[in-house]
Amino acid sequence: MSRLPPPLPWPGGARAAASFTFDLDAESGLLWEQPDVAARASVITHQSYGPLVGLPRLLDMLERHRVRSTFFVPGWTAERYPGAVRDVVAAGHEIGHHGYLHEQPSALTAAEEATALDRGLEALEAVAGVRPVGYRAPMWDASWRTARLLAERGFLYDSSLMDADTPYELAVPVGGGDDDGRPPTSSSSIVEIPIHWALDDWERYAYLPGLVGSGLIEAPAVARAVWEAELDGLRAAGGCWVLTCHPFLSGRPGRALELERLLERVIGMDDVWLAPLEEIARHVRVLGLPPRTLTPPQV
Amino acid sequence: MSRLPPPLPWPGGARAAASFTFDLDAESGLLWEQPDVAARASVITHQSYGPLVGLPRLLDMLERHRVRSTFFVPGWTAERYPGAVRDVVAAGHEIGHHGYLHEQPSALTAAEEATALDRGLEALEAVAGVRPVGYRAPMWDASWRTARLLAERGFLYDSSLMDADTPYELAVPVGGGDDDGRPPTSSSSIVEIPIHWALDDWERYAYLPGLVGSGLIEAPAVARAVWEAELDGLRAAGGCWVLTCHPFLSGRPGRALELERLLERVIGMDDVWLAPLEEIARHVRVLGLPPRTLTPPQV
Amino acid sequence: MSRLPPPLPWPGGARAAASFTFDLDAESGLLWEQPDVAARASVITHQSYGPLVGLPRLLDMLERHRVRSTFFVPGWTAERYPGAVRDVVAAGHEIGHHGYLHEQPSALTAAEEATALDRGLEALEAVAGVRPVGYRAPMWDASWRTARLLAERGFLYDSSLMDADTPYELAVPVGGGDDDGRPPTSSSSIVEIPIHWALDDWERYAYLPGLVGSGLIEAPAVARAVWEAELDGLRAAGGCWVLTCHPFLSGRPGRALELERLLERVIGMDDVWLAPLEEIARHVRVLGLPPRTLTPPQV
Amino acid sequence: MSRLPPPLPWPGGARAAASFTFDLDAESGLLWEQPDVAARASVITHQSYGPLVGLPRLLDMLERHRVRSTFFVPGWTAERYPGAVRDVVAAGHEIGHHGYLHEQPSALTAAEEATALDRGLEALEAVAGVRPVGYRAPMWDASWRTARLLAERGFLYDSSLMDADTPYELAVPVGGGDDDGRPPTSSSSIVEIPIHWALDDWERYAYLPGLVGSGLIEAPAVARAVWEAELDGLRAAGGCWVLTCHPFLSGRPGRALELERLLERVIGMDDVWLAPLEEIARHVRVLGLPPRTLTPPQV
Repeated sequence: MSRLPPPLPWPGGARAAASFTFDLDAESGLLWEQPDVAARASVITHQSYGPLVGLPRLLDMLERHRVRSTFFVPGWTAERYPGAVRDVVAAGHEIGHHGYLHEQPSALTAAEEATALDRGLEALEAVAGVRPVGYRAPMWDASWRTARLLAERGFLYDSSLMDADTPYELAVPVGGGDDDGRPPTSSSSIVEIPIHWALDDWERYAYLPGLVGSGLIEAPAVARAVWEAELDGLRAAGGCWVLTCHPFLSGRPGRALELERLLERVIGMDDVWLAPLEEIARHVRVLGLPPRTLTPPQV
Repeated sequence: MSRLPPPLPWPGGARAAASFTFDLDAESGLLWEQPDVAARASVITHQSYGPLVGLPRLLDMLERHRVRSTFFVPGWTAERYPGAVRDVVAAGHEIGHHGYLHEQPSALTAAEEATALDRGLEALEAVAGVRPVGYRAPMWDASWRTARLLAERGFLYDSSLMDADTPYELAVPVGGGDDDGRPPTSSSSIVEIPIHWALDDWERYAYLPGLVGSGLIEAPAVARAVWEAELDGLRAAGGCWVLTCHPFLSGRPGRALELERLLERVIGMDDVWLAPLEEIARHVRVLGLPPRTLTPPQV
Repeated sequence: MSRLPPPLPWPGGARAAASFTFDLDAESGLLWEQPDVAARASVITHQSYGPLVGLPRLLDMLERHRVRSTFFVPGWTAERYPGAVRDVVAAGHEIGHHGYLHEQPSALTAAEEATALDRGLEALEAVAGVRPVGYRAPMWDASWRTARLLAERGFLYDSSLMDADTPYELAVPVGGGDDDGRPPTSSSSIVEIPIHWALDDWERYAYLPGLVGSGLIEAPAVARAVWEAELDGLRAAGGCWVLTCHPFLSGRPGRALELERLLERVIGMDDVWLAPLEEIARHVRVLGLPPRTLTPPQV
Repeated sequence: MSRLPPPLPWPGGARAAASFTFDLDAESGLLWEQPDVAARASVITHQSYGPLVGLPRLLDMLERHRVRSTFFVPGWTAERYPGAVRDVVAAGHEIGHHGYLHEQPSALTAAEEATALDRGLEALEAVAGVRPVGYRAPMWDASWRTARLLAERGFLYDSSLMDADTPYELAVPVGGGDDDGRPPTSSSSIVEIPIHWALDDWERYAYLPGLVGSGLIEAPAVARAVWEAELDGLRAAGGCWVLTCHPFLSGRPGRALELERLLERVIGMDDVWLAPLEEIARHVRVLGLPPRTLTPPQV
């Protein structure tokens, strides 16, 4: 008899869920934080490798294994690399929202956060003709108003929080935790699909001297070991394992080889349901879970 | 014939002692250092995972193996998560003091340090009806007056210093090393149960960009290897191995699996006495060791 | 049917290309960034180990295996260690341009960047009687004008960008992406041979407290595992693997042993063409590839 | 026929030399850099573990294997822990000079550097009755005048530079590279026994949040792998392997176990001469090598 709630029921009697997701940032996040990197050709090409080389390699990999995935794409990136985003759509994958220029939501005013959402939606619509149902906060740093802004725009799910092993219905805050003075809308919820820093390729691979990274650039087998340990744990717990990779990082040849080995292992687990986040969110929505209310801390 | 003192006698003829301890910080330490993180939903949920998910998982694990442990809980955390703290008590574990908002003692004035102690005591009493006998300095950063403040409040032991492999009686400083101008109380001692940075899950796992961590997020097997090397060493030396884990870190599914393997190994060592810190401190107190006086350095 | 372009045809029907390259910085980069390190004898000797000990060891290693390599040498280093540079030439290796004092191009004005190129050319000519055909940007940080400055000076290739797995013809920008007001020259191209931070020994080994490095100093076998994973990936992809080592780092005895094991493995791959960068660039030039135009991002 | 000079002849026909050395810093270096850490009890006990526990453990280890070693001791440390230093002497080990309060030589004026040397000599004489013949620069950061200051005080050797695999005679600079205005003394030399950051336990183990370390605390087996790779390399090259450990780090139980395994392996190498640095320096002095002159770089 565990102190933890029972696992969610997964489709087909699966014991756990898993999703390989990709954040197609390209240069966006760097440029938002430090616009002057635009002048640095080596730095920019380090990032553009993502849409130019990493993405086609990863799309090939997913196609070889007939796996549908989720790609979170900043609007600016869609505008700079329209062909890349259309290739993702043509291959049948889900496009998620990832800000306009990869703006960190918690560093924005309410108006700025709303604008970033709206510009991102417009860009994805204009470039690829898609209206995403899912969102992931750039820099994985949602504000307390993010959920309400998403609900107001009809999003089905968010994937930016870290307080669970499994998706849940997140109550949209009304009349609290917000700072823009607008009257509360009627209460609602969005599906939250949690992520975690240990399930990201950024901490494993990202390195640009003086810009990003700690200096650590791991062997792909080491990265895989970290991700796989958590996969084993979440599988045992009946949770939802969400891996986040960046095409400019995990699309490098040696890393993609190792990622494919991991993908093959997950495909071979007949008790794990492998799906894009949209399908996971729709499954959760149907369960009709009671929404959870998160309360910002007071000091 | 060694230059080191002979090992302490341990109960049942054990060769060494061991304790798995947990610091249930949740958001407290982050908020004390950087109150503005309260506005960041992703960051806060990264921390609240501890009491919400990590703690019940770890309590289940300890129960499966019938192991009693020690949980150090800041008062603020007890107030925000009263059910979590009551669950710890109900499961039969020891509650230790860990400041009010996880305040770093060496950064406080004497009055502030005393207040943090008193507020922490009040919160634990109010929430869980417990009066802790043990203390661990938040950020593992005790001041020279900490021992006296603890002795004045009737604490049996402290677990914050690093100059021994084994517990000892720490003389409470009188008339020196203090800065609050109060007259010295009569001399006394508390039991000190040493810790060490290599026996902490923080350096292995903690990562929040720009807030904590070096960027390193280790595979659980690597973390275990570091802890186990020191376990082997302290076992050979007849010392006392004290591991510190944080539910928001080691309560993640993959890490908890590895921690359980380590726990099983320690349980299987019939020459190691596994106990909560309070029991270790009471054992040491009965030995009647002569107190050690620590002298702050002069430059 | 891949979304990636077909691999380049390599000489002798090889599947992929590989090159071991060396940046003979010695003290230059440190002095450019922090001139006051000139007063620190331990720091300076840490760097001078490169030309004094690491270089002869690596030249011996290359000779044992009859491998020709490419050494990128800052002009200042050539002037301080003329014998070392002449030894490289005498052993039959290629000398590439690497700035004068290892100046970071993106931090320079157009005039300063041109001066660094010209002073570097003069120094290599004066010391070793060579006119290099290849260039690698110091700190791997080319500006958008670097390619034009190289083309104007008759360089055949650059090896500083990161947006491909394989060499390409890089269109020299005319009338855009430049800031010096000079009229555009006629259009042309240089061969670009991409590099990547994961294929550098700097992140593995470089450490001078407070000056360089993250604190990480890896075991040579770990460094090799990272480089070899990418070798396996690029071999499978038909790309071009370019490893960059520094004699003051990889010339240390234990690291050189491991590097030699890796070199032996590559030599033993009969489907990999091992060559200095100049030969690779000449091979690519003959293929007559259409030049790619890179566009700096606009925010 | 190598480009490297032939190895030095080592006693008994050995192929290479090796020395396990220890820097008994205790609190000194931290206090020199940040005097206010004196108020932090946990930090101070982290350092005092060295003389109190790590040192006796390591002395026991060396005695078990009948190995003589070299301990570099700051004068301040000798004054705070006189018993510890006398134990080192009584066990037959060499005491080397390591500054007074572990002052970084390159950050001092010439007068301050001379004073630190003289105060260190006085303290070691007063506490332990020894006059060291060897010196290691605190923070491994010698100035260009260090060698002259040592020669003027009759030191036989220095162990602070990094530009060789093997000891050499270092010409004492006269009339250059100095800044104190004193007239040059007659030319002379001291023996230099090189060290390297990869052969230090600091980068492996040292961690005090906000004070020292990158966050990395390695498993002892990983540390050993790095040191052993360089041992294998220097053995093959006929060089001199000098490992530096700190009792507060490598004296911890699990690390000492691994260090002992490494020591046993070196003892078992019948082609490696294991000796304290003084013996190595005396052997080198007898060889009558021509002194090398080091030239500070000009920019």
